[in-house]
Amino acid sequence: MARYVAVVVGSLRKGSFNRMTAQALMEMAPESLKLEIVEIGNLPLYNQDHEADPPSESVAFKQRIAAADAVIFMTPEYNRSVPGVLKNAIDIASRPYGQSAWAKKPAAVISVSPGSLGGFGANHHLRQSLVFLDMPTLQQPEVYIGTCATLFDEHGKLVSEGTRKLLTNFLGAFANWVERNAA
Amino acid sequence: MARYVAVVVGSLRKGSFNRMTAQALMEMAPESLKLEIVEIGNLPLYNQDHEADPPSESVAFKQRIAAADAVIFMTPEYNRSVPGVLKNAIDIASRPYGQSAWAKKPAAVISVSPGSLGGFGANHHLRQSLVFLDMPTLQQPEVYIGTCATLFDEHGKLVSEGTRKLLTNFLGAFANWVERNAA
Amino acid sequence: MARYVAVVVGSLRKGSFNRMTAQALMEMAPESLKLEIVEIGNLPLYNQDHEADPPSESVAFKQRIAAADAVIFMTPEYNRSVPGVLKNAIDIASRPYGQSAWAKKPAAVISVSPGSLGGFGANHHLRQSLVFLDMPTLQQPEVYIGTCATLFDEHGKLVSEGTRKLLTNFLGAFANWVERNAA
Amino acid sequence: MARYVAVVVGSLRKGSFNRMTAQALMEMAPESLKLEIVEIGNLPLYNQDHEADPPSESVAFKQRIAAADAVIFMTPEYNRSVPGVLKNAIDIASRPYGQSAWAKKPAAVISVSPGSLGGFGANHHLRQSLVFLDMPTLQQPEVYIGTCATLFDEHGKLVSEGTRKLLTNFLGAFANWVERNAA
Repeated sequence: MARYVAVVVGSLRKGSFNRMTAQALMEMAPESLKLEIVEIGNLPLYNQDHEADPPSESVAFKQRIAAADAVIFMTPEYNRSVPGVLKNAIDIASRPYGQSAWAKKPAAVISVSPGSLGGFGANHHLRQSLVFLDMPTLQQPEVYIGTCATLFDEHGKLVSEGTRKLLTNFLGAFANWVERNAA
Repeated sequence: MARYVAVVVGSLRKGSFNRMTAQALMEMAPESLKLEIVEIGNLPLYNQDHEADPPSESVAFKQRIAAADAVIFMTPEYNRSVPGVLKNAIDIASRPYGQSAWAKKPAAVISVSPGSLGGFGANHHLRQSLVFLDMPTLQQPEVYIGTCATLFDEHGKLVSEGTRKLLTNFLGAFANWVERNAA
Repeated sequence: MARYVAVVVGSLRKGSFNRMTAQALMEMAPESLKLEIVEIGNLPLYNQDHEADPPSESVAFKQRIAAADAVIFMTPEYNRSVPGVLKNAIDIASRPYGQSAWAKKPAAVISVSPGSLGGFGANHHLRQSLVFLDMPTLQQPEVYIGTCATLFDEHGKLVSEGTRKLLTNFLGAFANWVERNAA
Repeated sequence: MARYVAVVVGSLRKGSFNRMTAQALMEMAPESLKLEIVEIGNLPLYNQDHEADPPSESVAFKQRIAAADAVIFMTPEYNRSVPGVLKNAIDIASRPYGQSAWAKKPAAVISVSPGSLGGFGANHHLRQSLVFLDMPTLQQPEVYIGTCATLFDEHGKLVSEGTRKLLTNFLGAFANWVERNAA
């Protein structure tokens, strides 16, 4: 039976390279993994005062995450770290304390950026949060996708053979990781 | 002439210990520093597609930051990193690329948390962003305020003598830092 | 059959609290885990020029790690990061490229420090290295042992009940982690 | 009067690209900065038990650092972090507590690596240590030198125009930084 993998994309812009990469991943995924993007653009800013009566968008997002067997985070790098919009989504579904939707779900981090550094700073800051969130996180292959503007054609299709091969290796390793560490 | 210091508080809840600490700082500040909290709770989620015609709240926030001589970030730790809500504010005022409101402003980071770890993870993740933002950042004294629930009285007044002394030292060092590194 | 767990202690001083904690762990370990300290104090400084003909101490250390089923790193914090002496040992056994002794071995990180911050900086810097080293790393329980000087009696025995309980939980979680992720 | 800048190179191998980059920096430095490499390859592993009667190599190294007006760290990335050999040198000159040779000296970090990621992980881990060491650290320009094997000619001379320009900008910014923040 296929595992349902929530894909969380850390950029809201329409032409996001992270989203394009997520779409490439969805097309390339093996049958054992069913990838689905869970949107975060309509979430309110997290405020602990609202935990007793959370906004409906937050509740719905949290339910989508709770229903997943595993999670792939696709992140750009903003100011050498995780975009606020992505971290806000993580914070929302992590609360209240002790009722996190993320706990125990196998995870992976992919960072995509236009520069050569491949979003390294965002990638590892996110990994630090996943320790606290108790998400067993795939180590290798690390996926840093740099110079992303050169990897897609004008329809948003991933045409870089090197990147396709990396993502194929990633998907194989992640499928094994999910089997090994799913709750 | 006093320097105007924007204080950005990373928690939105009313009874925030970070906000209480910010208020203690404002009362204790030397005459050379005029501290003022700049609110971030009404900001939209950052979306690069909106840069050409940014939301008015984003414009106003960015103007407040641009008008400051220096910045103090007060941050709780959410999931071992910077709260999404604070990072979102940082992202908004950093854009568009080349027009950041943060650039060159002397900065400091204070982290406040209920646990003993003092928000170390948030503190240093934020510092990594300040490198990219080109904000000369005070190194010592580091300010990690742990077990924060025990440091205030029932009116929200900082009553811990140790913490007051630490903040006094911090303010003195920061005043010097601002003089030395202001644009 | 018991798993052999290499314990690498990041401090060389005789009265090291990290070593005392390692000894407590060894006494408390379940039958399924056989913990053994692998010494790092006699290693030379890593130099890539020596890879073709490595020093015998380096070869012996690397063999000890290669023979292990899993690894626990016990680290103090020096200057907000991993001690050079510990990182040097990690570097040595990771080389030459493609012949790392660490690869695929399930791992955990424990940080022990005299201050209240519990070695957070060292703990997470080490975790970043374990990503590259492809060591599946236990997320929870995180183990930050602060104010360590107060936790042991004059014979170096761990007498803090809270810390003993934390380590018991850790050992149970780690035993499961090793079973799940051993090569 | 020229400022004496200690250059600490984090790789011991003879053909080190970090060392080549250090040599390029020395040749390009403005008259106001006198750069000198301080060697770290003969240092013993740091051991707190030796602080009362430290090895002569450690004493000599610490004196060299203490005599400097500023410090430039040149670091490769080993296992996504600072090489143990470099961190060991940092640890040695930082001790005993309260008698650090690094304190208050303006600093900068340059990372050099063969891959495209430019040693980002080492660069920022090192920056975290510089907070504790109270070294005012230059933020911009960040210097991540990737694909380093392509930037030098067969005599070890830096021939990449882009990198030469980056280093020229860096040296100008660092000279200003040192003037502004020297003790």
